Amino acid sequence: MLIPVRKAVLAHNDAEAAENARLFESRRVRVVNVMASPGAGKTSLILAVARALPEGLRPLVIEGDVASSIDTEKVAAAGIPVHQINTDGDCHLDAGSVRRAFEALPAVSGPGLLFIENIGNLICPAEFDLGEDLRLVIASVPEGDDKPRKYPAIFALADVVILNKTDLLGHVEFDRAAFEAGIRAVNDRAPIFDVTCRGTTSGIGALVSWLVTEPRPERPDSPAMGT
Amino acid sequence: MLIPVRKAVLAHNDAEAAENARLFESRRVRVVNVMASPGAGKTSLILAVARALPEGLRPLVIEGDVASSIDTEKVAAAGIPVHQINTDGDCHLDAGSVRRAFEALPAVSGPGLLFIENIGNLICPAEFDLGEDLRLVIASVPEGDDKPRKYPAIFALADVVILNKTDLLGHVEFDRAAFEAGIRAVNDRAPIFDVTCRGTTSGIGALVSWLVTEPRPERPDSPAMGT
Repeated sequence: MLIPVRKAVLAHNDAEAAENARLFESRRVRVVNVMASPGAGKTSLILAVARALPEGLRPLVIEGDVASSIDTEKVAAAGIPVHQINTDGDCHLDAGSVRRAFEALPAVSGPGLLFIENIGNLICPAEFDLGEDLRLVIASVPEGDDKPRKYPAIFALADVVILNKTDLLGHVEFDRAAFEAGIRAVNDRAPIFDVTCRGTTSGIGALVSWLVTEPRPERPDSPAMGT
Repeated sequence: MLIPVRKAVLAHNDAEAAENARLFESRRVRVVNVMASPGAGKTSLILAVARALPEGLRPLVIEGDVASSIDTEKVAAAGIPVHQINTDGDCHLDAGSVRRAFEALPAVSGPGLLFIENIGNLICPAEFDLGEDLRLVIASVPEGDDKPRKYPAIFALADVVILNKTDLLGHVEFDRAAFEAGIRAVNDRAPIFDVTCRGTTSGIGALVSWLVTEPRPERPDSPAMGT
Protein backbone atom coordinates (compact mmCIF):
# COMPACT_ATOMS: atom_id res chain seq x y z
CA MET A 1 0.00 0.00 0.00
CA LEU A 2 2.84 2.41 0.79
CA ILE A 3 4.50 2.26 -2.62
CA PRO A 4 1.50 3.45 -4.68
CA VAL A 5 0.82 6.22 -2.14
CA ARG A 6 4.45 7.31 -2.34
CA LYS A 7 4.44 7.25 -6.14
CA ALA A 8 1.30 9.37 -6.23
CA VAL A 9 2.84 11.89 -3.81
CA LEU A 10 6.00 12.16 -5.93
CA ALA A 11 4.07 12.47 -9.21
CA HIS A 12 1.93 15.25 -7.73
CA ASN A 13 5.08 17.00 -6.51
CA ASP A 14 6.78 16.71 -9.91
CA ALA A 15 3.79 18.35 -11.61
CA GLU A 16 3.89 21.22 -9.10
CA ALA A 17 7.67 21.52 -9.53
CA ALA A 18 7.26 21.94 -13.29
CA GLU A 19 4.77 24.75 -12.62
CA ASN A 20 7.23 26.35 -10.20
CA ALA A 21 9.98 26.25 -12.83
CA ARG A 22 7.75 28.10 -15.31
CA LEU A 23 6.80 30.64 -12.63
CA PHE A 24 10.42 31.28 -11.59
CA GLU A 25 11.44 31.77 -15.21
CA SER A 26 8.59 34.18 -15.89
CA ARG A 27 9.69 36.27 -12.91
CA ARG A 28 13.36 36.17 -14.00
CA VAL A 29 14.40 34.45 -10.81
CA ARG A 30 17.17 31.86 -10.84
CA VAL A 31 16.60 29.31 -8.09
CA VAL A 32 19.11 27.29 -6.08
CA ASN A 33 17.96 24.39 -3.88
CA VAL A 34 20.42 24.25 -0.95
CA MET A 35 20.68 20.84 0.72
CA ALA A 36 22.92 19.63 3.56
CA SER A 37 23.11 17.98 6.98
CA PRO A 38 22.06 19.94 10.06
CA GLY A 39 24.81 22.39 10.92
CA ALA A 40 26.75 22.12 7.64
CA GLY A 41 26.45 25.87 7.19
CA LYS A 42 23.58 26.36 4.75
CA THR A 43 22.53 29.76 6.09
CA SER A 44 26.11 31.01 6.43
CA LEU A 45 26.84 30.02 2.83
CA ILE A 46 23.69 31.71 1.56
CA LEU A 47 24.58 34.91 3.39
CA ALA A 48 28.18 34.86 2.11
CA VAL A 49 27.02 34.31 -1.49
CA ALA A 50 24.31 36.96 -1.19
CA ARG A 51 26.88 39.53 -0.06
CA ALA A 52 29.05 38.76 -3.10
CA LEU A 53 26.37 38.87 -5.82
CA PRO A 54 26.95 41.17 -8.79
CA GLU A 55 25.08 44.46 -8.74
CA GLY A 56 21.56 44.20 -10.13
CA LEU A 57 20.97 40.61 -9.03
CA ARG A 58 18.74 40.63 -6.00
CA PRO A 59 19.01 37.84 -3.41
CA LEU A 60 15.85 36.22 -2.02
CA VAL A 61 15.56 33.37 0.47
CA ILE A 62 12.99 30.74 1.38
CA GLU A 63 13.95 29.13 4.70
CA GLY A 64 12.84 25.58 5.45
CA ASP A 65 12.93 24.24 8.99
CA VAL A 66 11.13 21.61 10.99
CA ALA A 67 10.70 24.17 13.74
CA SER A 68 11.95 27.65 14.74
CA SER A 69 12.67 30.77 12.73
CA ILE A 70 16.30 31.19 13.82
CA ASP A 71 17.69 31.25 10.28
CA THR A 72 14.96 33.51 8.92
CA GLU A 73 15.84 36.06 11.59
CA LYS A 74 19.51 35.95 10.51
CA VAL A 75 18.61 36.43 6.84
CA ALA A 76 16.16 39.24 7.57
CA ALA A 77 18.80 40.96 9.70
CA ALA A 78 21.02 41.00 6.59
CA GLY A 79 18.29 42.94 4.77
CA ILE A 80 17.36 40.09 2.43
CA PRO A 81 13.70 39.32 1.66
CA VAL A 82 12.92 35.96 3.27
CA HIS A 83 9.93 33.73 3.95
CA GLN A 84 9.88 30.87 6.48
CA ILE A 85 8.38 27.42 5.91
CA ASN A 86 7.98 25.27 9.02
CA THR A 87 7.27 21.65 8.08
CA ASP A 88 6.12 20.54 11.57
CA GLY A 89 8.06 17.31 11.39
CA ASP A 90 8.35 16.66 7.66
CA CYS A 91 11.93 15.95 6.61
CA HIS A 92 11.91 17.84 3.28
CA LEU A 93 10.31 20.76 1.47
CA ASP A 94 7.92 20.09 -1.39
CA ALA A 95 7.04 22.06 -4.51
CA GLY A 96 3.65 23.22 -3.22
CA SER A 97 5.03 24.74 -0.02
CA VAL A 98 7.78 26.46 -2.01
CA ARG A 99 5.21 27.92 -4.42
CA ARG A 100 3.21 29.39 -1.55
CA ALA A 101 6.37 30.76 0.10
CA PHE A 102 7.52 32.33 -3.18
CA GLU A 103 4.20 34.10 -3.58
CA ALA A 104 4.53 35.45 -0.05
CA LEU A 105 7.87 37.09 -0.87
CA PRO A 106 7.88 40.70 -2.12
CA ALA A 107 7.52 40.78 -5.94
CA VAL A 108 10.93 40.86 -7.60
CA SER A 109 11.38 43.84 -9.89
CA GLY A 110 14.27 42.52 -11.91
CA PRO A 111 16.61 39.56 -12.05
CA GLY A 112 16.85 37.71 -8.75
CA LEU A 113 18.65 34.76 -7.22
CA LEU A 114 16.41 32.76 -4.90
CA PHE A 115 17.97 30.38 -2.40
CA ILE A 116 15.70 27.68 -1.04
CA GLU A 117 17.26 26.41 2.19
CA ASN A 118 15.94 22.87 2.44
CA ILE A 119 15.49 20.90 5.70
CA GLY A 120 18.78 19.80 7.31
CA ASN A 121 18.88 16.24 6.06
CA LEU A 122 20.90 14.24 3.51
CA ILE A 123 18.11 11.80 2.64
CA CYS A 124 14.54 13.05 2.19
CA PRO A 125 15.19 16.25 0.17
CA ALA A 126 16.76 14.20 -2.63
CA GLU A 127 13.37 12.90 -3.76
CA PHE A 128 11.46 16.16 -4.04
CA ASP A 129 12.03 18.41 -7.04
CA LEU A 130 11.14 22.01 -6.15
CA GLY A 131 11.38 23.43 -9.69
CA GLU A 132 14.87 24.77 -8.97
CA ASP A 133 17.45 25.62 -11.62
CA LEU A 134 20.44 24.33 -9.66
CA ARG A 135 20.87 21.77 -6.88
CA LEU A 136 23.58 22.66 -4.42
CA VAL A 137 24.74 20.16 -1.79
CA ILE A 138 27.00 21.24 1.08
CA ALA A 139 29.21 18.90 3.07
CA SER A 140 31.28 20.32 5.91
CA VAL A 141 34.76 19.23 6.94
CA PRO A 142 33.88 18.12 10.51
CA GLU A 143 31.21 15.74 9.18
CA GLY A 144 33.99 13.60 7.73
CA ASP A 145 35.08 12.65 4.23
CA ASP A 146 32.79 9.62 3.94
CA LYS A 147 29.45 11.40 3.54
CA PRO A 148 29.22 10.95 -0.27
CA ARG A 149 29.67 7.18 0.18
CA LYS A 150 27.06 7.06 2.95
CA TYR A 151 24.44 9.30 1.30
CA PRO A 152 25.04 8.70 -2.41
CA ALA A 153 21.58 9.70 -3.68
CA ILE A 154 21.88 13.36 -2.76
CA PHE A 155 25.44 13.67 -4.05
CA ALA A 156 24.39 11.97 -7.30
CA LEU A 157 21.79 14.63 -8.07
CA ALA A 158 23.96 17.62 -7.09
CA ASP A 159 24.78 20.15 -9.81
CA VAL A 160 27.43 21.60 -7.52
CA VAL A 161 29.03 20.39 -4.26
CA ILE A 162 30.39 22.74 -1.63
CA LEU A 163 32.98 21.63 0.89
CA ASN A 164 32.38 24.09 3.72
CA LYS A 165 34.32 24.88 6.92
CA THR A 166 37.69 24.35 5.30
CA ASP A 167 39.11 26.47 8.14
CA LEU A 168 38.75 23.28 10.22
CA LEU A 169 41.04 21.20 7.97
CA GLY A 170 43.97 20.35 10.21
CA HIS A 171 41.77 20.31 13.32
CA VAL A 172 39.88 17.15 12.32
CA GLU A 173 40.68 14.08 10.23
CA PHE A 174 39.54 14.67 6.67
CA ASP A 175 40.93 13.14 3.50
CA ARG A 176 40.09 15.59 0.68
CA ALA A 177 40.96 13.05 -2.05
CA ALA A 178 38.70 10.39 -0.50
CA PHE A 179 35.87 12.94 -0.28
CA GLU A 180 36.20 13.79 -3.96
CA ALA A 181 36.48 10.12 -4.94
CA GLY A 182 33.22 9.47 -3.07
CA ILE A 183 31.49 12.16 -5.12
CA ARG A 184 33.01 10.97 -8.40
CA ALA A 185 31.75 7.44 -7.74
CA VAL A 186 28.19 8.73 -8.24
CA ASN A 187 28.57 12.10 -10.00
CA ASP A 188 31.12 12.93 -12.71
CA ARG A 189 29.88 16.40 -13.57
CA ALA A 190 29.34 18.55 -10.45
CA PRO A 191 32.16 20.98 -9.71
CA ILE A 192 33.38 21.08 -6.11
CA PHE A 193 34.06 24.40 -4.42
CA ASP A 194 36.06 24.52 -1.18
CA VAL A 195 34.91 27.42 0.95
CA THR A 196 34.87 28.88 4.40
CA CYS A 197 32.25 31.37 5.55
CA ARG A 198 33.80 32.35 8.89
CA GLY A 199 35.64 35.60 9.30
CA THR A 200 37.57 36.11 6.05
CA THR A 201 35.56 34.06 3.59
CA SER A 202 37.38 32.03 0.98
CA GLY A 203 36.23 30.41 -2.26
CA ILE A 204 32.98 32.39 -2.44
CA GLY A 205 33.88 34.49 -5.48
CA ALA A 206 34.43 31.47 -7.73
CA LEU A 207 31.19 29.91 -6.52
CA VAL A 208 29.22 33.10 -7.22
CA SER A 209 30.60 33.26 -10.77
CA TRP A 210 29.50 29.67 -11.35
CA LEU A 211 26.05 30.14 -9.78
CA VAL A 212 25.13 33.19 -11.85
CA THR A 213 26.29 31.79 -15.20
CA GLU A 214 25.70 28.03 -15.13
CA PRO A 215 22.77 27.01 -17.35
CA ARG A 216 19.97 24.93 -15.88
CA PRO A 217 20.95 21.34 -16.66
CA GLU A 218 18.71 19.12 -18.74
CA ARG A 219 17.36 16.54 -16.33
CA PRO A 220 16.06 13.12 -17.27
CA ASP A 221 13.46 13.28 -14.49
CA SER A 222 12.04 16.75 -14.92
CA PRO A 223 11.18 19.02 -17.85
CA ALA A 224 14.06 21.20 -19.01
CA MET A 225 13.07 24.85 -19.12
CA GLY A 226 13.93 27.05 -22.08
CA THR A 227 16.04 30.12 -21.39
CA MET B 1 -4.99 9.19 2.65
CA LEU B 2 -1.43 9.64 3.94
CA ILE B 3 -2.37 10.12 7.58
CA PRO B 4 -4.16 6.78 8.08
CA VAL B 5 -1.36 4.95 6.25
CA ARG B 6 1.21 6.65 8.47
CA LYS B 7 -0.75 5.83 11.63
CA ALA B 8 -1.00 2.19 10.60
CA VAL B 9 2.74 2.04 9.93
CA LEU B 10 3.54 3.54 13.33
CA ALA B 11 1.08 1.28 15.18
CA HIS B 12 2.59 -1.80 13.51
CA ASN B 13 6.07 -0.57 14.44
CA ASP B 14 5.08 0.03 18.08
CA ALA B 15 3.77 -3.53 18.37
CA GLU B 16 7.04 -4.91 16.97
CA ALA B 17 9.03 -2.62 19.27
CA ALA B 18 7.21 -4.02 22.32
CA GLU B 19 8.16 -7.54 21.15
CA ASN B 20 11.77 -6.42 20.70
CA ALA B 21 11.84 -5.06 24.25
CA ARG B 22 10.69 -8.41 25.62
CA LEU B 23 13.26 -10.24 23.48
CA PHE B 24 16.13 -7.98 24.56
CA GLU B 25 15.21 -8.42 28.20
CA SER B 26 14.98 -12.21 27.90
CA ARG B 27 18.51 -12.24 26.42
CA ARG B 28 19.83 -9.90 29.14
CA VAL B 29 20.82 -7.27 26.60
CA ARG B 30 20.50 -3.58 27.42
CA VAL B 31 19.82 -1.59 24.28
CA VAL B 32 20.77 1.99 23.41
CA ASN B 33 19.28 3.71 20.33
CA VAL B 34 21.95 6.14 19.10
CA MET B 35 20.59 9.06 17.07
CA ALA B 36 22.37 12.07 15.53
CA SER B 37 23.07 14.12 12.40
CA PRO B 38 25.38 12.72 9.73
CA GLY B 39 28.96 13.08 10.94
CA ALA B 40 28.17 13.87 14.59
CA GLY B 41 30.34 10.95 15.68
CA LYS B 42 27.94 8.10 16.37
CA THR B 43 30.38 5.32 15.50
CA SER B 44 33.30 6.99 17.28
CA LEU B 45 31.21 7.37 20.43
CA ILE B 46 30.04 3.74 20.30
CA LEU B 47 33.64 2.55 19.95
CA ALA B 48 34.86 4.77 22.78
CA VAL B 49 32.07 3.55 25.10
CA ALA B 50 32.60 -0.09 24.08
CA ARG B 51 36.29 0.14 25.01
CA ALA B 52 35.39 1.49 28.45
CA LEU B 53 32.67 -1.03 29.42
CA PRO B 54 33.05 -2.89 32.71
CA GLU B 55 34.35 -6.44 32.46
CA GLY B 56 31.62 -9.00 31.81
CA LEU B 57 29.40 -6.67 29.79
CA ARG B 58 29.74 -7.52 26.11
CA PRO B 59 29.28 -4.83 23.46
CA LEU B 60 27.19 -5.54 20.36
CA VAL B 61 26.33 -3.20 17.51
CA ILE B 62 23.62 -2.91 14.86
CA GLU B 63 24.70 -0.40 12.21
CA GLY B 64 22.06 1.48 10.25
CA ASP B 65 22.97 3.26 7.03
CA VAL B 66 21.20 4.30 3.87
CA ALA B 67 24.12 2.82 1.93
CA SER B 68 27.66 1.51 2.49
CA SER B 69 29.16 -0.64 5.25
CA ILE B 70 31.92 1.79 6.25
CA ASP B 71 30.93 1.92 9.91
CA THR B 72 30.35 -1.82 10.18
CA GLU B 73 33.89 -2.38 8.97
CA LYS B 74 35.21 -0.02 11.68
CA VAL B 75 33.23 -1.80 14.41
CA ALA B 76 34.22 -5.28 13.20
CA ALA B 77 37.87 -4.17 13.11
CA ALA B 78 37.53 -3.40 16.84
CA GLY B 79 36.48 -7.03 17.44
CA ILE B 80 32.87 -6.19 18.27
CA PRO B 81 30.01 -8.33 16.90
CA VAL B 82 28.11 -6.16 14.42
CA HIS B 83 25.34 -6.50 11.85
CA GLN B 84 24.61 -3.98 9.08
CA ILE B 85 21.17 -2.75 8.03
CA ASN B 86 21.05 -0.83 4.75
CA THR B 87 17.74 0.98 4.36
CA ASP B 88 18.11 1.75 0.63
CA GLY B 89 16.83 5.28 1.04
CA ASP B 90 14.67 5.09 4.15
CA CYS B 91 15.57 7.78 6.65
CA HIS B 92 15.20 5.72 9.86
CA LEU B 93 15.42 2.19 11.23
CA ASP B 94 12.26 0.36 12.28
CA ALA B 95 11.58 -2.29 14.87
CA GLY B 96 11.22 -5.13 12.36
CA SER B 97 14.59 -4.53 10.72
CA VAL B 98 16.23 -4.27 14.15
CA ARG B 99 14.66 -7.59 15.20
CA ARG B 100 16.05 -9.35 12.13
CA ALA B 101 19.49 -7.77 12.62
CA PHE B 102 19.52 -8.80 16.30
CA GLU B 103 18.77 -12.39 15.38
CA ALA B 104 21.64 -12.31 12.89
CA LEU B 105 24.13 -11.37 15.62
CA PRO B 106 25.96 -14.14 17.48
CA ALA B 107 23.90 -15.31 20.48
CA VAL B 108 24.91 -13.40 23.60
CA SER B 109 26.06 -15.67 26.42
CA GLY B 110 25.74 -13.23 29.27
CA PRO B 111 24.87 -9.60 29.87
CA GLY B 112 25.38 -7.40 26.83
CA LEU B 113 25.08 -3.78 25.80
CA LEU B 114 23.68 -3.39 22.29
CA PHE B 115 24.12 -0.12 20.44
CA ILE B 116 21.76 0.52 17.56
CA GLU B 117 23.33 3.19 15.37
CA ASN B 118 20.35 4.79 13.69
CA ILE B 119 20.39 6.58 10.31
CA GLY B 120 22.17 9.96 10.36
CA ASN B 121 19.16 12.22 10.66
CA LEU B 122 17.59 14.41 13.35
CA ILE B 123 14.01 14.01 12.13
CA CYS B 124 12.75 10.59 11.01
CA PRO B 125 14.27 8.35 13.74
CA ALA B 126 12.30 10.23 16.41
CA GLU B 127 9.05 8.57 15.38
CA PHE B 128 10.13 4.93 15.38
CA ASP B 129 10.45 3.07 18.68
CA LEU B 130 12.91 0.17 18.30
CA GLY B 131 12.24 -1.43 21.69
CA GLU B 132 15.36 0.19 23.12
CA ASP B 133 15.98 0.77 26.83
CA LEU B 134 17.65 4.14 26.40
CA ARG B 135 17.52 6.85 23.73
CA LEU B 136 20.81 8.64 23.21
CA VAL B 137 21.03 11.76 21.05
CA ILE B 138 24.39 13.19 20.01
CA ALA B 139 24.97 16.77 18.94
CA SER B 140 28.47 17.82 17.92
CA VAL B 141 30.08 21.19 18.55
CA PRO B 142 30.64 22.16 14.88
CA GLU B 143 26.92 21.70 14.11
CA GLY B 144 26.22 24.76 16.25
CA ASP B 145 24.40 25.38 19.51
CA ASP B 146 20.96 25.85 17.91
CA LYS B 147 20.22 22.24 16.98
CA PRO B 148 17.87 21.54 19.95
CA ARG B 149 15.75 24.55 18.95
CA LYS B 150 15.67 23.49 15.29
CA TYR B 151 14.99 19.77 15.86
CA PRO B 152 13.04 19.76 19.14
CA ALA B 153 11.26 16.41 18.69
CA ILE B 154 14.37 14.28 18.88
CA PHE B 155 15.82 16.22 21.82
CA ALA B 156 12.48 15.96 23.63
CA LEU B 157 12.54 12.15 23.58
CA ALA B 158 16.22 11.79 24.52
CA ASP B 159 17.02 9.99 27.77
CA VAL B 160 20.57 11.31 27.50
CA VAL B 161 22.21 13.96 25.31
CA ILE B 162 25.86 13.86 24.31
CA LEU B 163 27.75 16.96 23.25
CA ASN B 164 30.53 15.47 21.13
CA LYS B 165 33.70 16.98 19.61
CA THR B 166 34.31 19.29 22.54
CA ASP B 167 37.93 19.43 21.34
CA LEU B 168 36.60 21.87 18.69
CA LEU B 169 35.26 24.35 21.27
CA GLY B 170 37.37 27.44 20.68
CA HIS B 171 37.73 26.67 16.97
CA VAL B 172 34.06 27.36 16.16
CA GLU B 173 31.34 29.56 17.61
CA PHE B 174 29.36 27.57 20.16
CA ASP B 175 27.46 28.87 23.17
CA ARG B 176 27.29 25.97 25.65
CA ALA B 177 24.64 27.70 27.79
CA ALA B 178 22.40 28.35 24.76
CA PHE B 179 22.75 24.70 23.73
CA GLU B 180 21.67 23.52 27.18
CA ALA B 181 18.82 26.03 27.31
CA GLY B 182 17.58 24.67 23.97
CA ILE B 183 17.47 21.17 25.41
CA ARG B 184 15.83 22.29 28.65
CA ALA B 185 13.07 24.03 26.68
CA VAL B 186 11.81 20.58 25.62
CA ASN B 187 13.44 18.12 28.03
CA ASP B 188 14.00 18.66 31.74
CA ARG B 189 15.27 15.22 32.63
CA ALA B 190 18.03 14.07 30.23
CA PRO B 191 21.56 14.48 31.57
CA ILE B 192 24.07 16.05 29.19
CA PHE B 193 27.56 14.58 28.86
CA ASP B 194 30.32 16.60 27.17
CA VAL B 195 32.75 14.28 25.45
CA THR B 196 35.47 14.01 22.88
CA CYS B 197 36.34 10.73 21.18
CA ARG B 198 39.52 11.87 19.39
CA GLY B 199 42.93 10.97 20.72
CA THR B 200 42.67 11.19 24.51
CA THR B 201 38.96 10.70 25.09
CA SER B 202 37.23 12.78 27.71
CA GLY B 203 33.89 12.38 29.47
CA ILE B 204 33.43 8.75 28.43
CA GLY B 205 33.82 7.22 31.91
CA ALA B 206 30.93 9.19 33.38
CA LEU B 207 28.75 8.32 30.40
CA VAL B 208 29.52 4.61 30.71
CA SER B 209 28.60 4.65 34.41
CA TRP B 210 25.29 6.25 33.54
CA LEU B 211 24.54 3.91 30.60
CA VAL B 212 25.10 0.71 32.56
CA THR B 213 23.08 1.72 35.62
CA GLU B 214 20.23 3.95 34.44
CA PRO B 215 16.89 2.16 34.60
CA ARG B 216 14.71 2.00 31.50
CA PRO B 217 12.39 5.00 31.85
CA GLU B 218 8.65 4.56 31.96
CA ARG B 219 7.37 5.98 28.70
CA PRO B 220 3.88 7.31 28.11
CA ASP B 221 3.98 6.05 24.50
CA SER B 222 5.33 2.52 24.91
CA PRO B 223 4.95 -0.29 27.44
CA ALA B 224 7.43 -0.08 30.33
CA MET B 225 9.30 -3.34 30.73
CA GLY B 226 9.81 -4.96 34.13
CA THR B 227 13.39 -5.45 35.28
